[in-house]
Amino acid sequence: MSKNRLEAFSDGVIAIIITIMVLELKPPHSTDAAGLADVLPGWLRYALSFVYVGIYWINHHALLDRVAKVDGAALWANLHLLFWMSLIPYVTAWAGEHPMAPAPVALYGVVLLLCSISFMLLSWRLDIDAGGHAMAWGSRKNRVSIALYALAILLSLWYAPLGAVIHVLLALLWLMPEVGAPRSA
Amino acid sequence: MSKNRLEAFSDGVIAIIITIMVLELKPPHSTDAAGLADVLPGWLRYALSFVYVGIYWINHHALLDRVAKVDGAALWANLHLLFWMSLIPYVTAWAGEHPMAPAPVALYGVVLLLCSISFMLLSWRLDIDAGGHAMAWGSRKNRVSIALYALAILLSLWYAPLGAVIHVLLALLWLMPEVGAPRSA
Amino acid sequence: MSKNRLEAFSDGVIAIIITIMVLELKPPHSTDAAGLADVLPGWLRYALSFVYVGIYWINHHALLDRVAKVDGAALWANLHLLFWMSLIPYVTAWAGEHPMAPAPVALYGVVLLLCSISFMLLSWRLDIDAGGHAMAWGSRKNRVSIALYALAILLSLWYAPLGAVIHVLLALLWLMPEVGAPRSA
Amino acid sequence: MSKNRLEAFSDGVIAIIITIMVLELKPPHSTDAAGLADVLPGWLRYALSFVYVGIYWINHHALLDRVAKVDGAALWANLHLLFWMSLIPYVTAWAGEHPMAPAPVALYGVVLLLCSISFMLLSWRLDIDAGGHAMAWGSRKNRVSIALYALAILLSLWYAPLGAVIHVLLALLWLMPEVGAPRSA
Repeated sequence: MSKNRLEAFSDGVIAIIITIMVLELKPPHSTDAAGLADVLPGWLRYALSFVYVGIYWINHHALLDRVAKVDGAALWANLHLLFWMSLIPYVTAWAGEHPMAPAPVALYGVVLLLCSISFMLLSWRLDIDAGGHAMAWGSRKNRVSIALYALAILLSLWYAPLGAVIHVLLALLWLMPEVGAPRSA
Repeated sequence: MSKNRLEAFSDGVIAIIITIMVLELKPPHSTDAAGLADVLPGWLRYALSFVYVGIYWINHHALLDRVAKVDGAALWANLHLLFWMSLIPYVTAWAGEHPMAPAPVALYGVVLLLCSISFMLLSWRLDIDAGGHAMAWGSRKNRVSIALYALAILLSLWYAPLGAVIHVLLALLWLMPEVGAPRSA
Repeated sequence: MSKNRLEAFSDGVIAIIITIMVLELKPPHSTDAAGLADVLPGWLRYALSFVYVGIYWINHHALLDRVAKVDGAALWANLHLLFWMSLIPYVTAWAGEHPMAPAPVALYGVVLLLCSISFMLLSWRLDIDAGGHAMAWGSRKNRVSIALYALAILLSLWYAPLGAVIHVLLALLWLMPEVGAPRSA
Repeated sequence: MSKNRLEAFSDGVIAIIITIMVLELKPPHSTDAAGLADVLPGWLRYALSFVYVGIYWINHHALLDRVAKVDGAALWANLHLLFWMSLIPYVTAWAGEHPMAPAPVALYGVVLLLCSISFMLLSWRLDIDAGGHAMAWGSRKNRVSIALYALAILLSLWYAPLGAVIHVLLALLWLMPEVGAPRSA
């Protein structure tokens, strides 16, 4: 399969993920201020997930720019990344509805962690396709992120908002353009 | 990232937004005339939103035609626009179900206002990419629209149908082809 | 806007319509034969709508093959067609759940009728774009279909299954390849 | 219609199928371990379906690589495959919610069986388009799979988890890259 087709398919899946999340967003139960306050955590979690999917979309392209062709293993490494990303709408809805509960916020972190790991695995596989030695196992930024996602899971189980703070900080870290260069994705 | 990829991704997201809105459309509770009358405001709000998304799709293309390449800031300015557009199905469903309630109709106006502002910001960023001085800050039509969207929010809080009237008038304003030329988008 | 972009966007919307219909398909209430019997009309209606959307997708391409460029009016004539098509998942769900009720089956027919009329209007506009005189107002097959869709609405209001029979017959009529040539779409 | 357009449309539909499945995934009723245990079968069924759709996506491309053009019959053979694939989210949700009930697990198998048969029919039609004699009726692997899918349906009706085991084994069989070559799809 050509790289272009893989990119087009991944773009399609990512465009759908980023757009269908809104279908999981519950409307307020009432039309007064109390109703709005009730759904506010869901809105913020939605915005955060939108940023995450946006970051992945941009980094995914930067990653694929490195290689000229993809083999079957890279195809499955890519589907593996899309699998974990496809769960973002699910955990966004659950964590958005229960912002103070450990399990949903921790599960959100688990999905982010697995997205990050699968991104690293894809990066590793594409390095091999590109003829590299693939000793890097992702950038330092990627490895630091994985450690922080793991920390966020633990903290979420203790006190959920602490996990949410780390989720926000990590999104900000990846928004920095200078460190978001292809190699370090 | 090439402009073509940005356009294809945006087209994908806009195509999904315009299509999934229907999933938020509630079926009538009964199969008689009373049931139909009950869902009629939702249908009209759906049709209005369909027109809005169609207008944005057309103007988005006209906007991108101006530039030859996009940088990282334009990428995020574009995702920012798509973020506010992605909320259109959500507010369409809520305002469609509560056509006389101030909060849902006002919130619909807030999302339209933020779509319009983010479109202006994207326009401004692309002007810089194209080497322009970006002093224009959008066309006069765009600035007038922003003022009217803000007015619609205030009126909605007072009497919701007044806000809805302005939403319809603004859609009609943007449907006029002669003023919908690229520069004034 | 180029014709290619219009086709890609329309294809995207049609692909989403044909796929999200399944989200409106209710699971059986129980896991025994009675539960399956209960959802069977919904399944059949789903299959019928799938065929209709497939027919429109094929004919839409045949239609656009006629022209080299599209103007703003054709753009909106196309969005108009997509608007009515976007309601197919909605009426499929409602008619599928109430196969014996006049209103849902008649409404299904109304949407099919408006899809057919908007397809004819698009055809008429593209004829003008192509330099033709557009006196044809669609093929004879198209005009006959419109009359039959209107008849189906009337019959549905009297006895719903009669309307459903015409919906099936019209799908079969359009499946015939020899009469489905571009000009007669 | 050109082969490229058919591929792009099919890719779009498959990308949507693989992504909207998540919308059918129910959130846990509670945020404790019991709530998670309750939804676990749904998660596993989701993962299995994701793998299946991924396999079909890859094999669909390999299949279309064989031919240079497609005729009207191949177009409908392709829509026929997409029809059965479009039901995967539906049966995934139902079987995921009732992992021990015969009917949902058997129905999941029925849809997989019909996907497999329609893939074989498409393969057969494309062989004719490519000038072949089409005596093969799919590869040996394809024929064996069809027999196993049929067996899974029977076993599901007797004891549902047995059917699920065969569903997993068949996914593993198709994941083997060496036998997943174009011809044997």
